[in-house]
Amino acid sequence: MEHTNGGDTSASAQAHSNIALAKYWGKRDAALNIPAVGSISITLDALHTDTRVTFDAGLTKDELWLDGREQQVGRAGLVLDLVRERAGIDLRARVVSENNFPTGAGLASSASGFAALAVAATAAAGIEATPRELSVLARRGSASAARSIFGGYAELHAGESTDGNDSFAEPLLDGDAWPLSVVVAITDPGQKAVSSTVGMQATSASSPFYPAWVESAPADLDRMRAAILAHDLETVGELAEHSCLALHSLMLTTRPALIYWNAATMSAIHAVRGLRAGGLPVYFTIDAGPQVKALCLPADAAAVASALTLVPGVQETRTSVLGPAAHLVAVP
Amino acid sequence: MEHTNGGDTSASAQAHSNIALAKYWGKRDAALNIPAVGSISITLDALHTDTRVTFDAGLTKDELWLDGREQQVGRAGLVLDLVRERAGIDLRARVVSENNFPTGAGLASSASGFAALAVAATAAAGIEATPRELSVLARRGSASAARSIFGGYAELHAGESTDGNDSFAEPLLDGDAWPLSVVVAITDPGQKAVSSTVGMQATSASSPFYPAWVESAPADLDRMRAAILAHDLETVGELAEHSCLALHSLMLTTRPALIYWNAATMSAIHAVRGLRAGGLPVYFTIDAGPQVKALCLPADAAAVASALTLVPGVQETRTSVLGPAAHLVAVP
Repeated sequence: MEHTNGGDTSASAQAHSNIALAKYWGKRDAALNIPAVGSISITLDALHTDTRVTFDAGLTKDELWLDGREQQVGRAGLVLDLVRERAGIDLRARVVSENNFPTGAGLASSASGFAALAVAATAAAGIEATPRELSVLARRGSASAARSIFGGYAELHAGESTDGNDSFAEPLLDGDAWPLSVVVAITDPGQKAVSSTVGMQATSASSPFYPAWVESAPADLDRMRAAILAHDLETVGELAEHSCLALHSLMLTTRPALIYWNAATMSAIHAVRGLRAGGLPVYFTIDAGPQVKALCLPADAAAVASALTLVPGVQETRTSVLGPAAHLVAVP
Repeated sequence: MEHTNGGDTSASAQAHSNIALAKYWGKRDAALNIPAVGSISITLDALHTDTRVTFDAGLTKDELWLDGREQQVGRAGLVLDLVRERAGIDLRARVVSENNFPTGAGLASSASGFAALAVAATAAAGIEATPRELSVLARRGSASAARSIFGGYAELHAGESTDGNDSFAEPLLDGDAWPLSVVVAITDPGQKAVSSTVGMQATSASSPFYPAWVESAPADLDRMRAAILAHDLETVGELAEHSCLALHSLMLTTRPALIYWNAATMSAIHAVRGLRAGGLPVYFTIDAGPQVKALCLPADAAAVASALTLVPGVQETRTSVLGPAAHLVAVP
């Protein structure tokens, strides 16, 4: 936190994207942004958001700048309101955010973005918040952001309370305790046509499989947690692929259908399965977008990246180790 | 039926492939091959099987020749047994069958194949059988074959009886009453790795969405039947796409996953959606395989075929109008 002249206060934070190995889709409370099921993720070192928040007496409304362009404030305004309420301040804020990866393309930019916002805004407002409180705050912006407060392996609980205060993420396993790598194959850096928030609402309203998903998710979550704690890559990978395919099945059976995959997505899926058939332990997962993330051992990451780079339609690969928790950084 | 020297009897039949617009997947009785849900299909003029059956006193076992190669007799032997039982004969048979399209590649060669077998075998055995009886007989070989006994639009009932005798297909609408066209985009003519029969068993045993599918299918079937009788292409098309995507969602969530799509499958899906976004009424459906079938008005078929021919990975397109019922043909 930095107090500048004129009563302005600024803070900057960095948070890393995460990908869920056991995914959630759908909300049990849309207004409070509480997920319908729990989820387990890994935080990615290579993809991050840097966000600076400045509460400025000279502003008449909140401003959001993302990758150099002013945006609708949207849910960032809600997070700022919660921070202002807790801090007892009434200043408007300027939020300046930069992603080092494509935004809104299924690479969890909302996860890293809202986690960085929660950390920077609370610090700029002079609030002391625990990681769990930061996680609940970030969740109001984007449920997956609750997980990006933490590094390594994290679990977001769906919780049961009506206020959502028991829907928070917490660390499941330190990244150093079981290092894994992820090769992200970018097949289309463009923004997706339907946002996750809109897509989830449509799915819960219209997919005939949605109730079965909500019912079956907790058991898979338990299995995933156990497999991670056991450092069992084969089981983690098989569960991750099933969770991914179940998620996309929900989307495909939404009316109208949400089809996030493209030709290169399919080719990358088959490439990962082909590598595995050849003896290399690598597993795919895909979020609400066309990018394929391949989970593997760090020693195999270069081979996986080489193979995915050769897949027709894959424009770029990024290899990542597991990343750290969201943290404050010195204001430049 | 032709009686030749030596007590041999031969008959030849032609039956056409069909594609389900409201699909079934899974059996309520695996031994009797009774589908778990009903289905509605259109019979395709362009894809057909020609089958000659000869009961031959000189044979010591049944023989099956498909596209010039001898095959395991498999379920064809079961159909022949049922025919022999009803005819009161004990002669072994030679079955010689030719498809004018790739076999076992998700183009319903088992539908046309078993429908042609049922018609040819009963005739060769000298049995009079009603279309409904032929439909039940063909179903024992392949459930979708029950529909290929009929031309135009046909519905296969799941039925309720334990013997499967109320699980038969019947005509829903004559093809001339509402002519439609189908452009089949072949993305991979190879045989699929997992047969439909094996895949269905795996799905019903392991997909968390299978019960919801069985539960939701009848209402969609009712909607599809009404839309066909109303000649409402938009509703038929939307229901067909949903049925297709639900089917593939069941496959994707089977453990291990059944992934029949390839890159060209995805590209063809997007091409169909793109054409539709441009104002052309065209809808996709995909069976257990990577081929995409585009449903459209006959006047638009050439435009659809041109567009799909340009899709990367599409090796060939075949345009079909609605086809006729299975029928006997003169033995050459």
